[in-house]
Amino acid sequence: MTVGSKASLGQVLEIMGDRRLLKRIGVIGGGQLAWMMAIAAKQLGLALVVQAANKDEPAAAASDRMVIGEIDDFAATRAIAQMSDAITFENEFVNLKQLAELERVGVKFLPTLEMLGMLVDKYTQRQHLKKNHIPTPNFLSISDESDLLEAAQILGYPSVLKARRHGYDGKGTSIVKSESELLIAWEAMGKAPALLEAYVNFKAELAVMVARSESGARAIYPVVETQQVDQVCRRTIAPARVAPEVTIRAEAIAKNIVSSLNLVGIFGIELFLSGDDEVSVNEIAPRTHNSGHYTIEACPTSQFAQLLRVVSGMPLGDTHMTSPVAIMVNLLGYEISNSTYNSKRQQIAQIPNTFLHWYGKLNSKPGRKLGHATVLADDYAEAEAIADRIEQIWYE
Amino acid sequence: MTVGSKASLGQVLEIMGDRRLLKRIGVIGGGQLAWMMAIAAKQLGLALVVQAANKDEPAAAASDRMVIGEIDDFAATRAIAQMSDAITFENEFVNLKQLAELERVGVKFLPTLEMLGMLVDKYTQRQHLKKNHIPTPNFLSISDESDLLEAAQILGYPSVLKARRHGYDGKGTSIVKSESELLIAWEAMGKAPALLEAYVNFKAELAVMVARSESGARAIYPVVETQQVDQVCRRTIAPARVAPEVTIRAEAIAKNIVSSLNLVGIFGIELFLSGDDEVSVNEIAPRTHNSGHYTIEACPTSQFAQLLRVVSGMPLGDTHMTSPVAIMVNLLGYEISNSTYNSKRQQIAQIPNTFLHWYGKLNSKPGRKLGHATVLADDYAEAEAIADRIEQIWYE
Repeated sequence: MTVGSKASLGQVLEIMGDRRLLKRIGVIGGGQLAWMMAIAAKQLGLALVVQAANKDEPAAAASDRMVIGEIDDFAATRAIAQMSDAITFENEFVNLKQLAELERVGVKFLPTLEMLGMLVDKYTQRQHLKKNHIPTPNFLSISDESDLLEAAQILGYPSVLKARRHGYDGKGTSIVKSESELLIAWEAMGKAPALLEAYVNFKAELAVMVARSESGARAIYPVVETQQVDQVCRRTIAPARVAPEVTIRAEAIAKNIVSSLNLVGIFGIELFLSGDDEVSVNEIAPRTHNSGHYTIEACPTSQFAQLLRVVSGMPLGDTHMTSPVAIMVNLLGYEISNSTYNSKRQQIAQIPNTFLHWYGKLNSKPGRKLGHATVLADDYAEAEAIADRIEQIWYE
Repeated sequence: MTVGSKASLGQVLEIMGDRRLLKRIGVIGGGQLAWMMAIAAKQLGLALVVQAANKDEPAAAASDRMVIGEIDDFAATRAIAQMSDAITFENEFVNLKQLAELERVGVKFLPTLEMLGMLVDKYTQRQHLKKNHIPTPNFLSISDESDLLEAAQILGYPSVLKARRHGYDGKGTSIVKSESELLIAWEAMGKAPALLEAYVNFKAELAVMVARSESGARAIYPVVETQQVDQVCRRTIAPARVAPEVTIRAEAIAKNIVSSLNLVGIFGIELFLSGDDEVSVNEIAPRTHNSGHYTIEACPTSQFAQLLRVVSGMPLGDTHMTSPVAIMVNLLGYEISNSTYNSKRQQIAQIPNTFLHWYGKLNSKPGRKLGHATVLADDYAEAEAIADRIEQIWYE
């Protein structure tokens, strides 16, 4: 008998990979989304080859192979490409120009780099939406201060200043209520290329995950409500408590986006619901998304399995909810130390019908996504009572 | 950028384990059941420490730590005990006498060694069933040839000769139709302690998975039909197509078994259904079971997650079916070479609503369980048509 050493464990994974797996999928990014993809990959018989910034990132615990490299590290992506049948993204802020070299020599990226390039630039994304008659707030491109002031004249206040690139979780986004706030926000983002958008006085924020395969098949998940605290998602409630016509509108928008833009992959469509039940597009995430985490327990095919199905060419899976209600609660860091987290997550894991996902991040900082918990219940009141209890344990 | 070497990958798993995981669970046995437990463990935030006969066993691809040792290797079990909060079993044919030393010094085994000892001996198992008025075929203990002939006088022919220990998948079990067949079977099993059982002329075989926690909470899964070919399960059909009173009887038997025998863990109860709809116990597997594989896709909590919940002290999970019908098809080896399997499993993975699980065994031999596929469908006809297609691809 020998106790498996660290080295022999790695070796075994290597050997298993070759005889067990149907395909190898590369993913750029090693955070919690890649970690949850890696678990889904094991179930599907696929290997996940992860490009992660360091060996302590969450995906390390479940991926089959890792290559260490930042998101925009070209050599790292070339290395995972050599080991993979196709590559997808946990994080869209890659170096598209460099990756195009790989695509030219036959490396398969899904979504394609062209689609990704169009989506990561908020201005070109919105132009495409507009061209395809998909409702989105009015917007104007900002290159310099004269653009800025002119746009503010047209859209009025409040309005929303957004950097064209690299925004997420409210980062790079400012709601401005006056010209002085506008100028300060513009200064703060280093006067980078931006757009100014009309402010939508929404009564709720919705989101919907939609997948589309290379053959054009689509699979859409239920429309959900998302609740933000300080512009970061705190809760997702599935399905959304909205009028049936709102659901129909949201689904039509999501399907229209992926088909009209010829997108392949899975996409998180963030939506505004206005006071008069109009639906418009806030953001499109070209990947799995926080608002789709509930699908792990609440749907036969999780968003992570679905993306892997698209990328590996397997038929799309069933997306209906198998629980009447699901609520996902994000567990965000609120202090630097990990000390109190352990007992709190032990408590959360003990709540019936509650599924805790702990990302295992080495460092906590206020606002960092450390984990999430999904509650399944027969009705909203029951689910909300449990979600309240989780937030009480975690945040108080 | 560095390409993650085999050694560093192992190291990362080690580090992740310590900060991510709620508890560490040991499992004796490294086959497909342990592999599926290891995937469930990742989802639940538990580490799985696996005792496997060699580094090529299926569980290697997903377990957090491995110790190499045969099922009955005491030193290996002692090693996993040092790394685990509790130990459970993939395979019940352990050395109970030796393990008792560990239990005495505080190592937690679930099921307990006492219960396991009672269940692995088919004679004591049946005595306990009889004492608790749980229907089971008539049986008599066989120590020598005079017992044997006397028992045959009482039970008549056909009857079933079973070794008291180490039987599974029909191994150690012979249906005998005459005294000469009986004597040959007795000779063939080396005249080991046995029992002779009345033959049940069943019209169907059923099975049901039932879990029980240390606090006495129970969770029962739907009753399923199992179809055997050459005494090995070929298909499981969930839920069973039987009269409601049959389901009630089967469930009552399963619940009665775990509560009256004070069992803790998960148990696969194999049942006979007679022509007049009477239900009796064929076998009790003190672990996850082939007839429960369908729960991975068809129930909110799989049998593997449920066992981990019991062993780690988490509340039991929901066991209802979220698909109207599920059929599991075993993919058994039919030749020594792996050559034709690869293209066949690629084909099976392409069938919609079909979930292929490939165990990644290094060697195939006729009859060996190499994988399984679960089909979800809205009705039996649809599910059977797909199951037929899978068998056609695989076996023809």
